[in-house]
Amino acid sequence: MRLLIRRVAAIPLDGVHDLLPEVDIAIEHGRIRAIGVAPPDFTPDQVIDGREHVALPAFFNAHTHAAMILLRGWAEDLPFDRWLNEKIWVAESALEEEDVYWGAALACCEMIRCGVVGFADHYFWMHQVARAVAEAGMKALLAWCQFGLGAAQEVGGVGLEDTVAFIREWNGAADGRIRCALGPHSPYMCPPDFLRRVVKEAERLGVGIHLHVSESEEQVRNSLRAYGRTPVAHLADLGVFEHPTLAAHCIAVSDEDLAILAEKGVYVAHTPKTYMKLAMGMAPLDRFLNAGVRVALGTDGPASNNDLNMLEVLRITGLVHKNRVGDPAAFPHHLLLRLATQEAARALGFIESGVLKPGAPADLILLDTRGVHWFPRHSLAANIVYASHPSDVRYVFCDGRPLLWDGQLVTLDEERIRDEAERRAFRMVGAPMRLMRRYVG
Amino acid sequence: MRLLIRRVAAIPLDGVHDLLPEVDIAIEHGRIRAIGVAPPDFTPDQVIDGREHVALPAFFNAHTHAAMILLRGWAEDLPFDRWLNEKIWVAESALEEEDVYWGAALACCEMIRCGVVGFADHYFWMHQVARAVAEAGMKALLAWCQFGLGAAQEVGGVGLEDTVAFIREWNGAADGRIRCALGPHSPYMCPPDFLRRVVKEAERLGVGIHLHVSESEEQVRNSLRAYGRTPVAHLADLGVFEHPTLAAHCIAVSDEDLAILAEKGVYVAHTPKTYMKLAMGMAPLDRFLNAGVRVALGTDGPASNNDLNMLEVLRITGLVHKNRVGDPAAFPHHLLLRLATQEAARALGFIESGVLKPGAPADLILLDTRGVHWFPRHSLAANIVYASHPSDVRYVFCDGRPLLWDGQLVTLDEERIRDEAERRAFRMVGAPMRLMRRYVG
Repeated sequence: MRLLIRRVAAIPLDGVHDLLPEVDIAIEHGRIRAIGVAPPDFTPDQVIDGREHVALPAFFNAHTHAAMILLRGWAEDLPFDRWLNEKIWVAESALEEEDVYWGAALACCEMIRCGVVGFADHYFWMHQVARAVAEAGMKALLAWCQFGLGAAQEVGGVGLEDTVAFIREWNGAADGRIRCALGPHSPYMCPPDFLRRVVKEAERLGVGIHLHVSESEEQVRNSLRAYGRTPVAHLADLGVFEHPTLAAHCIAVSDEDLAILAEKGVYVAHTPKTYMKLAMGMAPLDRFLNAGVRVALGTDGPASNNDLNMLEVLRITGLVHKNRVGDPAAFPHHLLLRLATQEAARALGFIESGVLKPGAPADLILLDTRGVHWFPRHSLAANIVYASHPSDVRYVFCDGRPLLWDGQLVTLDEERIRDEAERRAFRMVGAPMRLMRRYVG
Repeated sequence: MRLLIRRVAAIPLDGVHDLLPEVDIAIEHGRIRAIGVAPPDFTPDQVIDGREHVALPAFFNAHTHAAMILLRGWAEDLPFDRWLNEKIWVAESALEEEDVYWGAALACCEMIRCGVVGFADHYFWMHQVARAVAEAGMKALLAWCQFGLGAAQEVGGVGLEDTVAFIREWNGAADGRIRCALGPHSPYMCPPDFLRRVVKEAERLGVGIHLHVSESEEQVRNSLRAYGRTPVAHLADLGVFEHPTLAAHCIAVSDEDLAILAEKGVYVAHTPKTYMKLAMGMAPLDRFLNAGVRVALGTDGPASNNDLNMLEVLRITGLVHKNRVGDPAAFPHHLLLRLATQEAARALGFIESGVLKPGAPADLILLDTRGVHWFPRHSLAANIVYASHPSDVRYVFCDGRPLLWDGQLVTLDEERIRDEAERRAFRMVGAPMRLMRRYVG
């Protein structure tokens, strides 16, 4: 499909222009052919009037557990151990393989509506997530979570062999939109021998590794006691960082840890809403950036974070860290936009995305700027970061294919997914059907 | 108008029920006549099918400078002194009286769309804000900002006599929807003699006082140096708190200050988004509540905060303070909802609002729960606080009168206000008209 977006304002994030006040964007064969003036020989199949809209590279979500959307709102206002032990794990014990598909599909609906075209997912039964991603037309980096601890290895019915089979089947699938990684849960849930096997498989398969790292001071103390090393140094010793690594969180990190992460080119996924809702403290975004560590923004799973709204993640990141470092000039909005677009895309291995320029994949979104909350429009970029609403996202394109068109989902049957996912979620938590019906009307 | 909302889920915030899964709400003469089953003799003029919606008391915004919406996005990512001196005050020097009306009207559009029916405003030319409030059908507590410092007293063209005339004209106007207060800017901008005159006028007029208090440690140090008292103790000495007082911010407060605020029944307006965006630190919400200080949530002005979205204020308040005190069980969602509804309404003097029960004013909103971001609907209250979008707000009633009906503004001409406010805002900042037109298309 050849698509022409006419007379749109664009924030290209190309390192050159802050704002192009009015341009045409020509899209062909899944890529941006021109931005500025459409080539004279360009004959579009479809034209969008871009006036009163702003075009932006689409968001990528650098860390989530999409299917945990089934537990959104199920475990509220609880201490962390009760949240996990009494609520999340109890409900997850009723998780069936097919539930993962419906949960992931629901998550895809929500992400597309928030302008997200790709996400890094870390969960169980990942071929079900892959099915949902393929149907949604999105991009993803999929990692099957593994514990490497005997019996726990059976969770989700997978050992390392099964995940290897999953990677062989799905890596590069859906026209290259699906990428796979190995997904050891974390250094505290995976013993060194298991992590060594993971590293060997990463080498053999040529894929990266996505895991949780240093989520608390307690994890660091335990690692020092067990291995004489911080979790970051321990993972470096084991050779994990010799492969492209996406390390979620890194809340408790030393300067030495940061030097290792920077040197090895590890991407840190930063998900501040979860840290706040579960009172985990705050990862030091300023120290990451000062040390040259690459950072990508994400939502984390919607069971802890309650949604998959990258606009909100942008906003919270700016607000929290300006206040943390005591400087309202820190973390300017263009930096925040980059961490949620091109940096997040690169963290997932989609290294060409996150910029509007000729030749780049047409992964972009259009936001409607006519809502009263945009006025007066002194700064479109500041409005996106600090005032926009998800409902402003009106068009979403992934490799030039529309996933959202004038506010309507194109690839997914939203109502069916929504209702089926809710039915399964209520089954998981054992809510009596009669009660459910009262909500649902 | 007699209105019947049928089969709606309701969060009444009545101290009895967390959730009424399916009720009818009968509204008559501006008040809730029944919630549960409609009386047999109730013959509605209009019926709303409330299925798949949740009803909640409407929000009140406890502190803002509505017309500063004209400077939304105009001063981004700057140190505080440059933000204020180089941008805000320069632009405000071009403020004309009529601009205040259009700015306030735009702010009313945005607030209604976010479920807000009332707000406490503190600015200049407040009769223009009153005009907008009256037309919007909203409620407000209006305070004309005064500096009491000679020449600065001329800002907005008002001395204490003029504000007294404003209060005489507007207090109790619009069927009691408009209340007025005296608005000395703050103890650091108003000398003691001036504050004593304000107290005398408050007594004479029988109105309260709305001002800024203890926004920084530096203000406290300066107050101790000048008066040997913290700002709170200084205001108490001057008799300010003998009148109903709405004290914005109170970021730097001692335990003695909190004891005074609690004893005097002072309402603290808590506006965390501004504190974060301008890197001002964070007011201690836990200490307010533990000391028995009354707290109401607000947005602050959209020049610092960028929007007027009370759903976002709810969310940020919960996230920030759970993490600050290190306890995910703290600040449960029903508490947050109360601080943005009944506590905020009381802070403005609308003491009957903020609860759904027979006899209460029909100040309520309906949110549509069908968006994918609500699913699965394990907890409607948690979804409102942590996952809802402003576009979910579909109906807003103030004293039973619809301000928003099925997503459409009823009382205000949104497009005209939006465009006129933007035109005036661009004039204020001196943007060349040619550039503007490029944005606006």
